[in-house]
Amino acid sequence: MYLEDIPLPEAFSRLEKFLTAANLWDRLGSETIPLDDSALGRTLAEPVWAKISSPHYHAAAMDGFAVKAEATEGALPTQPITILVGEQAIYVDTGDPLPDSANAVIPIENVEPLDKDNQPAGQLRAPQSIRIRASVNPWSHVRPMGEDIVASQLVLPEGQTLRPVDLGVIAASGSSSVPVARRPKVAILPTGSELVPVGSRLSPGEIIEFNALVLASQVQEWGGEVTQLPITRDDFDHIFAAVRQAAVDHDLILINAGSSAGSEDFSAQVIEALGEVFVHGVAVRPGHPVILGMIETGQSEDGERVGVSPHKSTPVIGVPGYPVSAALTGEIFVAPLISRWLGRPPEYPTKIKATLTRKITSPAGDDDYVRVALGRVGPRLLAAPLARGAGVISSLVKADGLALLPRGSQGKPAGAEVEVSLYRTQAEIERTIFATGSHDITLDIMAQFLYQSGRRMAIANVGSIAGLVALSRAEAHLAGAHLLDPETGEYNLSYIKQYLPGVPVRVVSLVGRSQGLLVQKGNPKDIRTIPDITRQGVTFVNRQRGSGTRVLLDYQLEKLGISGEDIQGYHQQEYTHLTLGAAIASGRADCGIGIAAVTQALDLEFIPLFEERYDLIIPQEHAQSPLLQPLLELLADDEFKYMVADLPGYDVTQMGKLIAEIP
Amino acid sequence: MYLEDIPLPEAFSRLEKFLTAANLWDRLGSETIPLDDSALGRTLAEPVWAKISSPHYHAAAMDGFAVKAEATEGALPTQPITILVGEQAIYVDTGDPLPDSANAVIPIENVEPLDKDNQPAGQLRAPQSIRIRASVNPWSHVRPMGEDIVASQLVLPEGQTLRPVDLGVIAASGSSSVPVARRPKVAILPTGSELVPVGSRLSPGEIIEFNALVLASQVQEWGGEVTQLPITRDDFDHIFAAVRQAAVDHDLILINAGSSAGSEDFSAQVIEALGEVFVHGVAVRPGHPVILGMIETGQSEDGERVGVSPHKSTPVIGVPGYPVSAALTGEIFVAPLISRWLGRPPEYPTKIKATLTRKITSPAGDDDYVRVALGRVGPRLLAAPLARGAGVISSLVKADGLALLPRGSQGKPAGAEVEVSLYRTQAEIERTIFATGSHDITLDIMAQFLYQSGRRMAIANVGSIAGLVALSRAEAHLAGAHLLDPETGEYNLSYIKQYLPGVPVRVVSLVGRSQGLLVQKGNPKDIRTIPDITRQGVTFVNRQRGSGTRVLLDYQLEKLGISGEDIQGYHQQEYTHLTLGAAIASGRADCGIGIAAVTQALDLEFIPLFEERYDLIIPQEHAQSPLLQPLLELLADDEFKYMVADLPGYDVTQMGKLIAEIP
Repeated sequence: MYLEDIPLPEAFSRLEKFLTAANLWDRLGSETIPLDDSALGRTLAEPVWAKISSPHYHAAAMDGFAVKAEATEGALPTQPITILVGEQAIYVDTGDPLPDSANAVIPIENVEPLDKDNQPAGQLRAPQSIRIRASVNPWSHVRPMGEDIVASQLVLPEGQTLRPVDLGVIAASGSSSVPVARRPKVAILPTGSELVPVGSRLSPGEIIEFNALVLASQVQEWGGEVTQLPITRDDFDHIFAAVRQAAVDHDLILINAGSSAGSEDFSAQVIEALGEVFVHGVAVRPGHPVILGMIETGQSEDGERVGVSPHKSTPVIGVPGYPVSAALTGEIFVAPLISRWLGRPPEYPTKIKATLTRKITSPAGDDDYVRVALGRVGPRLLAAPLARGAGVISSLVKADGLALLPRGSQGKPAGAEVEVSLYRTQAEIERTIFATGSHDITLDIMAQFLYQSGRRMAIANVGSIAGLVALSRAEAHLAGAHLLDPETGEYNLSYIKQYLPGVPVRVVSLVGRSQGLLVQKGNPKDIRTIPDITRQGVTFVNRQRGSGTRVLLDYQLEKLGISGEDIQGYHQQEYTHLTLGAAIASGRADCGIGIAAVTQALDLEFIPLFEERYDLIIPQEHAQSPLLQPLLELLADDEFKYMVADLPGYDVTQMGKLIAEIP
Repeated sequence: MYLEDIPLPEAFSRLEKFLTAANLWDRLGSETIPLDDSALGRTLAEPVWAKISSPHYHAAAMDGFAVKAEATEGALPTQPITILVGEQAIYVDTGDPLPDSANAVIPIENVEPLDKDNQPAGQLRAPQSIRIRASVNPWSHVRPMGEDIVASQLVLPEGQTLRPVDLGVIAASGSSSVPVARRPKVAILPTGSELVPVGSRLSPGEIIEFNALVLASQVQEWGGEVTQLPITRDDFDHIFAAVRQAAVDHDLILINAGSSAGSEDFSAQVIEALGEVFVHGVAVRPGHPVILGMIETGQSEDGERVGVSPHKSTPVIGVPGYPVSAALTGEIFVAPLISRWLGRPPEYPTKIKATLTRKITSPAGDDDYVRVALGRVGPRLLAAPLARGAGVISSLVKADGLALLPRGSQGKPAGAEVEVSLYRTQAEIERTIFATGSHDITLDIMAQFLYQSGRRMAIANVGSIAGLVALSRAEAHLAGAHLLDPETGEYNLSYIKQYLPGVPVRVVSLVGRSQGLLVQKGNPKDIRTIPDITRQGVTFVNRQRGSGTRVLLDYQLEKLGISGEDIQGYHQQEYTHLTLGAAIASGRADCGIGIAAVTQALDLEFIPLFEERYDLIIPQEHAQSPLLQPLLELLADDEFKYMVADLPGYDVTQMGKLIAEIP
């Protein structure tokens, strides 16, 4: 077993070759279903031609009197004509068929009933005669037969996926059933001895199985029918049996994980044993260890028969185990295959060009799919690369689109243009607020509130100083900062002067908060003060250079005459309070400096050391834009304030206070 | 009963006022459902905060040996270090938890097993010691706890509609169930004595009921749960009973048709009898006679109790009967209401600016929603207004977007810019071929074939000469024409010189076809020649001025010395062969000139008179564009040829032949 590095187009052409040979490179089949709301989202297996015209008769387009237009000739305001009801004029409601004698309708509001007073109000249909003061043209106020649809015309093309109005037009054109593509049946087999079902209590080394859930939902969304098989442990025989059984009544089998070439990876061996692996390893990141193969069932080597069909070829895709790789393998391989099997026309994602906020490095040998957050800051549409790890499924959740760095490229510098295939509409992207700078949990809560007002927040946790730098490069709408100026005791203002010269900004207080020592529950190493962290046997975890918390720490260390080199773990850096807290919770370190809010979630202890001010720095250009108004209004929202005040260590009394306007 | 003309924002604010008073202007409620694929598409009723970190332990990111990084210090290519397996190094598979003693993983490919030869191939995990030639940094090849998600962080905001990856991230963050908004229950009541169910045999005056199908599918797509009630005839008591019953267990009732103020329109009366109508008639076209009301049930006036709840307010929308009005009423009123009830953030359609190909006139008092087809011809994005009639549901099917002409506007001239809310992605729009000119059924078949190649055709039937004019204005990619030059006997070329001076075009033959007299089955008036159409008692229906067929007829009439005034119905014009055929089939006329293909579909008879050539005129700029290549290739496609040749009166022997390239 070995992993190749097959370029994507070559992988596809092998897939096409093998499926064509097995007569599986086309629509799988069709069925005729009744025309009701269950047809929504199904794909037409044949074009729909109109069986009847619509309207299928000449229909009155208004309530009024059907007449022969010729009989109204010469009618003028000053020279009315009287028409006898019953012979020359017949009352019709909208939609009624025109009597054979008539070729026009006089709307009821243009008619004077001559014996109106004898009629109950609103009962204008039965006067004995009517007077009109204008002639009507032939066919006026009539919907002629075929106005909408003429029998025999193309109503909808084969391959169309049915929307609500499509169902209406099919009915209007005289069909009561629709020929649609049969839904491909897809079996999903999660494998892995480390996997446990959703909802299980976890021990280290156990992983919640959710790739099958993601793949199943994708397949469902793309129009397939899913069978989720139970988790199978890493065992050749078990996987072999499950795959062979699934082949009986499925069109495609997805084996999740075990697609690489490790000692516990059995997918390729199983497919080889049942048929052929024609691709193992695609030059795509994330998602590299993909297997494409085809198994033959119906009779096994020892003559044993499986299922009913004498012989059946079933494609199998070995899907890599990392969640991002698994989801992208779905998008790259499974979606187009299902589309083909349904007879849908090729889909073209909407692509836009955007400017990279950060450098991307990329393996030259692979097509590299980079998840990006998108937002418009000033005139530029920006693409902020999200976490690259194939294990970071939250990066797919946050992604607004995928930028493809094709094979041969080793990356792109910050400021370069990339083409992005969109996951969201452009209208949504135009409503994204790019927040940068220091990390605070309040920003998460803010994002939650703003979502309701139609704003999405993309938060990049880079630290206070890097946030100011990002603002100076017009890469975000606002930055959070808590930068103490040791000389003045003031926060942020001197840094803004230094890093944002000439940029008019508004500085608004978000929260006051406690910074202190984060230690494990029970404080086993009895760490109480900054000097304690220099003790032998105490491991520290630091925040990254340029973060407000680091500035604070370094200032305190300087005051105390302590050097970073005296602290074990001083150079171990985390980018957010939460990941720093996680490092302590997991035992990777004994302590760190952070905010109190972290303790609650991670079951840590907090020893308060300082109070500080956390501000939002907003360039005036954005502070005045409609995009940011809901955010500024939120700072006065009581519900938001209460929710933040509920977290330990926060002071919201100054929330929303204008600290400074710097011209 | 009377119809008002309430501006849309006012209608909405009345809706808000009444629903707020009834405590129905917010999420209806929530339920907790298991985290499986049934959660797909549901809307979060609460934010999801991470219960656990992911990974929830330090996990090996590669297959290899877990070590203390410090133990590898000093290893160099020339100065390898040997590490004892079991004490200092422990084999780990990807995903395995890191042993407490370790803080890094050395990937297996960087390891030399010292007793390799004693091990079976691939079984590298059990050597007694390993040699390495490079040091590793602490935490390298490790996915630290919380790399993806840190316990307590915001995973997804309230109001998010769940996608496949969202289900994955919820599972990864430790939840096994999700709190989602309860689906609003919507009852749809079709009313109308003229309505018959889909699949019925039709008599004149009967209308196939499909609005309920369209509304039901819309509601389903927007996240509601639908009850489709049986058709109720136009009868106050029946409708009253059905509405009151539906109120028992639905959140919203849609009464379809009967929403106007005619004598058979009972919706408003029924709502008044059960509660209150607060809007009757909205200043919107199409869709004007909309009713918004609220009914109160639980106890009726005579004390009779309905249902279980002592008192219940239920909003009711009277939806107009014309199909386009009905579907748009769904989009304008029902969609935002369901969205609100689900707690979704407001949606913003993607809007683009496009250039109108034709003048639109619009009632000044109303917001006028114009359906348009969109396509890019050269540099311009064009919006071609579709049929305006509220009865023409095919216009909604063809629509790529909606242009809103707000109240106060009386229309826009051709060439003006309009803002269009998109129904399709921009990528789809960029793949639309605008075909104009003469109508031929072959174009429908072509559209069907091209759909499979990822091209959509928007066909405007304007006649041969108007098609050339449209090309000269760069309003289409190609035009169909069959314009006989009486002087030369040649087709199209002289007209191209006249109408497209200086535009390099390619002229390609599409088909040869028979033109002749279309008459009713059995030819009851015995019409055999052109002179026969001048006979007393014979009614003719003509094609519009500028159509090739009209040019042909007028040329023949001139040759025969017949004036149009001698022909009854000469001024009655139809824009396509099909609608002309429909006019004859319905008895509106006895005869007309058209193509043979029409007869089959409409059960007419055909008396051939002439053979003619029908060409495609394609400006070179477009003939060479990738957009049109599938169309040009189709002209050589045998399957397409056979399908066209199968229709009566077509000669495909010259299909695809280059007639001329005009520089």
